[in-house]
Amino acid sequence: MGGQVMRKLRFGMVGGGEGAFIGQVHRMAAELDGLAQLVCGAFSADAAKSTRSGQQIYHLPIERCYANYLDMFVAEAARADGMQFVVIATPNHTHFEIAQAALHAGLHVVCDKPVTLSLQQALDLQKIVGAEQAKFALTHNYTGYPMIKEARELVRSGAIGRVRRVSCEYLQGWLATDMTDNKQAGWRTDPDKAGLAGCFGDIGSHADNLIRYVTELPIESLCADLSTFVEGRKLDDDGNVLLRFCGGARGVISASQIAAGKENDLKLQVYGERGGLEWCQTQANSLLVRWLDKPYEVRRTGGPGISDAAQNASRIPAGHPEGYLEAFAQIYRQFCLDLLGAGGGDYPTINDGVRGLQFIEQVVASSQQGAVWVTLENLEKEVTQ
Amino acid sequence: MGGQVMRKLRFGMVGGGEGAFIGQVHRMAAELDGLAQLVCGAFSADAAKSTRSGQQIYHLPIERCYANYLDMFVAEAARADGMQFVVIATPNHTHFEIAQAALHAGLHVVCDKPVTLSLQQALDLQKIVGAEQAKFALTHNYTGYPMIKEARELVRSGAIGRVRRVSCEYLQGWLATDMTDNKQAGWRTDPDKAGLAGCFGDIGSHADNLIRYVTELPIESLCADLSTFVEGRKLDDDGNVLLRFCGGARGVISASQIAAGKENDLKLQVYGERGGLEWCQTQANSLLVRWLDKPYEVRRTGGPGISDAAQNASRIPAGHPEGYLEAFAQIYRQFCLDLLGAGGGDYPTINDGVRGLQFIEQVVASSQQGAVWVTLENLEKEVTQ
Amino acid sequence: MGGQVMRKLRFGMVGGGEGAFIGQVHRMAAELDGLAQLVCGAFSADAAKSTRSGQQIYHLPIERCYANYLDMFVAEAARADGMQFVVIATPNHTHFEIAQAALHAGLHVVCDKPVTLSLQQALDLQKIVGAEQAKFALTHNYTGYPMIKEARELVRSGAIGRVRRVSCEYLQGWLATDMTDNKQAGWRTDPDKAGLAGCFGDIGSHADNLIRYVTELPIESLCADLSTFVEGRKLDDDGNVLLRFCGGARGVISASQIAAGKENDLKLQVYGERGGLEWCQTQANSLLVRWLDKPYEVRRTGGPGISDAAQNASRIPAGHPEGYLEAFAQIYRQFCLDLLGAGGGDYPTINDGVRGLQFIEQVVASSQQGAVWVTLENLEKEVTQ
Amino acid sequence: MGGQVMRKLRFGMVGGGEGAFIGQVHRMAAELDGLAQLVCGAFSADAAKSTRSGQQIYHLPIERCYANYLDMFVAEAARADGMQFVVIATPNHTHFEIAQAALHAGLHVVCDKPVTLSLQQALDLQKIVGAEQAKFALTHNYTGYPMIKEARELVRSGAIGRVRRVSCEYLQGWLATDMTDNKQAGWRTDPDKAGLAGCFGDIGSHADNLIRYVTELPIESLCADLSTFVEGRKLDDDGNVLLRFCGGARGVISASQIAAGKENDLKLQVYGERGGLEWCQTQANSLLVRWLDKPYEVRRTGGPGISDAAQNASRIPAGHPEGYLEAFAQIYRQFCLDLLGAGGGDYPTINDGVRGLQFIEQVVASSQQGAVWVTLENLEKEVTQ
Repeated sequence: MGGQVMRKLRFGMVGGGEGAFIGQVHRMAAELDGLAQLVCGAFSADAAKSTRSGQQIYHLPIERCYANYLDMFVAEAARADGMQFVVIATPNHTHFEIAQAALHAGLHVVCDKPVTLSLQQALDLQKIVGAEQAKFALTHNYTGYPMIKEARELVRSGAIGRVRRVSCEYLQGWLATDMTDNKQAGWRTDPDKAGLAGCFGDIGSHADNLIRYVTELPIESLCADLSTFVEGRKLDDDGNVLLRFCGGARGVISASQIAAGKENDLKLQVYGERGGLEWCQTQANSLLVRWLDKPYEVRRTGGPGISDAAQNASRIPAGHPEGYLEAFAQIYRQFCLDLLGAGGGDYPTINDGVRGLQFIEQVVASSQQGAVWVTLENLEKEVTQ
Repeated sequence: MGGQVMRKLRFGMVGGGEGAFIGQVHRMAAELDGLAQLVCGAFSADAAKSTRSGQQIYHLPIERCYANYLDMFVAEAARADGMQFVVIATPNHTHFEIAQAALHAGLHVVCDKPVTLSLQQALDLQKIVGAEQAKFALTHNYTGYPMIKEARELVRSGAIGRVRRVSCEYLQGWLATDMTDNKQAGWRTDPDKAGLAGCFGDIGSHADNLIRYVTELPIESLCADLSTFVEGRKLDDDGNVLLRFCGGARGVISASQIAAGKENDLKLQVYGERGGLEWCQTQANSLLVRWLDKPYEVRRTGGPGISDAAQNASRIPAGHPEGYLEAFAQIYRQFCLDLLGAGGGDYPTINDGVRGLQFIEQVVASSQQGAVWVTLENLEKEVTQ
Repeated sequence: MGGQVMRKLRFGMVGGGEGAFIGQVHRMAAELDGLAQLVCGAFSADAAKSTRSGQQIYHLPIERCYANYLDMFVAEAARADGMQFVVIATPNHTHFEIAQAALHAGLHVVCDKPVTLSLQQALDLQKIVGAEQAKFALTHNYTGYPMIKEARELVRSGAIGRVRRVSCEYLQGWLATDMTDNKQAGWRTDPDKAGLAGCFGDIGSHADNLIRYVTELPIESLCADLSTFVEGRKLDDDGNVLLRFCGGARGVISASQIAAGKENDLKLQVYGERGGLEWCQTQANSLLVRWLDKPYEVRRTGGPGISDAAQNASRIPAGHPEGYLEAFAQIYRQFCLDLLGAGGGDYPTINDGVRGLQFIEQVVASSQQGAVWVTLENLEKEVTQ
Repeated sequence: MGGQVMRKLRFGMVGGGEGAFIGQVHRMAAELDGLAQLVCGAFSADAAKSTRSGQQIYHLPIERCYANYLDMFVAEAARADGMQFVVIATPNHTHFEIAQAALHAGLHVVCDKPVTLSLQQALDLQKIVGAEQAKFALTHNYTGYPMIKEARELVRSGAIGRVRRVSCEYLQGWLATDMTDNKQAGWRTDPDKAGLAGCFGDIGSHADNLIRYVTELPIESLCADLSTFVEGRKLDDDGNVLLRFCGGARGVISASQIAAGKENDLKLQVYGERGGLEWCQTQANSLLVRWLDKPYEVRRTGGPGISDAAQNASRIPAGHPEGYLEAFAQIYRQFCLDLLGAGGGDYPTINDGVRGLQFIEQVVASSQQGAVWVTLENLEKEVTQ
């Protein structure tokens, strides 16, 4: 960065008002590395609530709390110190129109996943991102863990050989009973707001993205068996998906929101011809690396013998645990450095969003046809951000 | 047992000669609780080798080392102190004829799994067991762990509610490369000796049995995607199977022998409406029990608060780890106590053998047809042993 | 907080310039909850370096980067938007004079530990804090973990009965070899800058504080055996201390910076008459709670069944790991809420600083006399902040 | 062993009757590897009880169940198939006279620890063992774990460099309340039967032996602070001991039987100049090996990359957990192979017994004088067995 002084990037938020846990997560993650600062928001469509949230939760001046994101885009564009990117922290069904408006307003975008309600919307958005020459980050935050970056490097380097078997398990229990009165659960189990899939839209899509990030293997076909265990629920709350990857690897994704008592257990395993990798979020700072003929080793966030990619994603000396927020903040760090022209760029983009929707749609299609095999068309016409 | 003195049961072994790790396992497990004693064996079809094994490995007198199991059955029947049951520790393809001969010779049988090469053979053997009024134990040894018994009791008692999701993962890495020169690997990867399935015959069948033991839920249908990753290998060495259980539960079995670096990792998860269970063999003395609304608890072999079934299967005070041999020995304990008329009876039988072969055949059938769903006919005409 | 709008608190930093890992930690922790914002700093006594650090690391305007903390206190006092508290992130030997100057300048203080070089200095500072009616926070950050708060509540509530045995182990390996050229290691192993103790000043003091926080038991006497294993090093790099607490409990503290290969492993165990507690930093989100007659339970950050104190210290839903920064940020949250008159107050104060120096001095005194027992005088004339 | 046929060794037991858990442990461990067989016993001084135990627990013929060990020694000496060694599984206060009688009767001895009530008795016994040219094994069974043997080899080989820091923690909770009515607890807390120490005689001595086995470092001096927390108990039930080893290493032993809720947690840590080792019994098949500059590795029972000593002590392929009984059985295996002239010899002997009593006596002496430092005289005039 030489002698140059970097100014913090200024951002606004859409959504994330009172009662929305994810708004604070975005704010903490975005600001963690000191590269960005929340300056405004349209936290709720209810003007009073938006103002209240902005002032009390985010400590913003009243004039930068908006009731309407369109107004915000306009008003902020007129300010010298106006927002430079927007964070979209609303339910899925609103992502497309907000993102579209933001992009047309010349803003860069950070958006919660899944990126849109449908694959078609995602493809449309991909075109807009390309046309607007904007940066678009999708918060598949689990890719931010240093040990996930280490896993990716181990695959990339060929150290564990050609990948044969991949599995990812993401189990939660919070929807084991009917939770429609809960704000978080309400929209996630409502097809109008969440989209085609419940559990697989919310967390199965993270598993898909994590596998893709680490192995870089496209899925060729899949066979999905989704279930809805809680009576009256309209979307899947559990499922298992068989995977066949381009190149011959096989795998399985299990995701559940009715695994009673489970918190948020995300586990990834990758086995190649010469070694294997295991990672789970409850032990996020460790990566087990297994070999055919020597003891397994445990690589650690910030520890010795890790790749540059993993070391660069470690903020504090080894042994001081880094958690979910720190991983989430990696997405923002890579995004902000990219915006600032200071490196970065290792974050999920609109292309991941497109792939994610394709995965969700094909999972649902497979399951609805009786859990049959469906092929995933090659959609890899990615935009360069 | 009152004032009555129990005499040790006397048994012979078929197979288990030099180079066969499982023979010693059977001997140690069978003798652990002091209820049985190895008195003879036909350890190899090579007479000299059988004698050598019997004398050097098992410390038996030369006259009780036989070259032929048929000779052994005849000779031992003529002795007052002759064998009372036989342990069959040979490759799969010989189980049927040895077991049949033993049963006709009036012996009780302990047999390695899978019980036969085909479902038809298993059904035939089931009839013979029924006709001979014999006891038949199948060494699905993982059901012998105290914490597996605890898991079963928790399901049976209704404590975790109706079961919704089940998964079992059994991953090994020892066949990640071509191992045909290895004695253990040789027959396990040879269809003539192992049967229709490789990985799923050897360890996938354990996963199936473990699920059945703990949940008591029959599989209604399944969809299996088996793979063979090592070039030239004729049987599957990896696979994932989607499961639908009678009554609505869903699940998945993953098994692999090419998960590079994995030792012998068997993991079971069961989630019901009100709680969940997690067990893995690397932490065999712990059972995680999760609840909807309180901290999870860890039940321990021999520890406080466990069921009678689990307590009775614990031999030493809590905190002194019990391992694989101790679990294996539970099968023998339950079998011997049954033979002695002193209780027991909690061990896998010929009926489990029939179910196991049905599972194997249907897994292979599903996979060969392109990983489609196949239905498992209700074979539950069990013999009472 | 009613309808009232809280403004972020503004703070400056002394120290924490280029090469100082702890400066960024303070910034991230202080800002995490959105209650405070770094507005200025005297990051180095070298003016150019201070400016460079302020601009490039902290993105501050040049006019708020000072070469001298005294200048900073004066200049900031003249601004309407001037700093309200100071963070002291310098080596130990400078804490006293900076803190004294800040307090006299009407600032509140957050200070790294140990608070001063000597007990006498700490007592002097305690008087000044009392006289100035200032708030003073000491960054014994490990007390910020939600599960440490849960542990404290379990002791306080009497749930585990009267405490009998306490142990705390804090092992690092980074000073296993001579590291005098390393900036972090240099001053920590230099008596002029670190004070009487090396390992026990740096991390043994954390162990002492953690025990005190959780059990609230004063140490009555101790017997310390300190060692210096690396040749040429002037301060202890390892030691074990026997403890006798007021009221009869016994315990031991082990601390090391030469435990080769250890990262930063902090482990606490507390056993009472009816139950026991175990916590370690590598599994910071879990607290093992053992009971005499039932399975042990694992309480989790944000999970069910935890105390209000622990729940309030959890930021995100259970299962999303919170780490070191989040715990560190609890100190700032409690301090800021206290400053804002909005609750808070659960943070280490100057009184903890006094106790800490007493512990360090007595540990060193004991060891220097041949590891004999020394009594800790009751210094509990605490100031009310 | 060539073409030679090994006959099983025949042994008798003293003690181990009804209600004594350790008798069955000895029987299972001694017989596990097929090298020895229990043929007789004086299980209780009550003739009827001894017979009942022999017949019902051990399945022995009535004529080999004795009421008196002296009678047993005489009667068995007269039989061609008489006992060849004796297992002493009685409370501590009887060890000396039984062992003496057995040695004089020409028997080899396996004895529970601590070997005698006093150091003087142990020294006397050492002379007798030397004079009788007998083999004497002491069941410090924890040294039988394969990963403990691996740890020893790592120290011996110099891989981790000169040892600096050692700690061993052995915590139980079963005596957290008054348990005098419990058979196991009764004699262990009775000075007439247990000797000078309670907790430190029973388990502290295991910690001492484990450290010695792994590091081979004699203790030069120690400072022990023992406590008795349960009212009315006459012996220590908890304590911490500072250690200084010959050559400069330092360490600490913590042992407790009142650590409420703890099962039987034995943990060893050894840190050298270049690496560190961690082992705990709850994960007995893993040894953590830490290095200064690369990820830590986990060596496993039966796994790749372990020493011959550890591999030879592994019975089953890696990943099938071996437990307490298997470790205990290693003592017997090494002892029996030694008796058979077939190798072996890696087991604790009377010399360990002497060292153990010296440790116990000095721990008690130190504590009784107010937890002062006491020096351990060099008693290393060992007999060669």
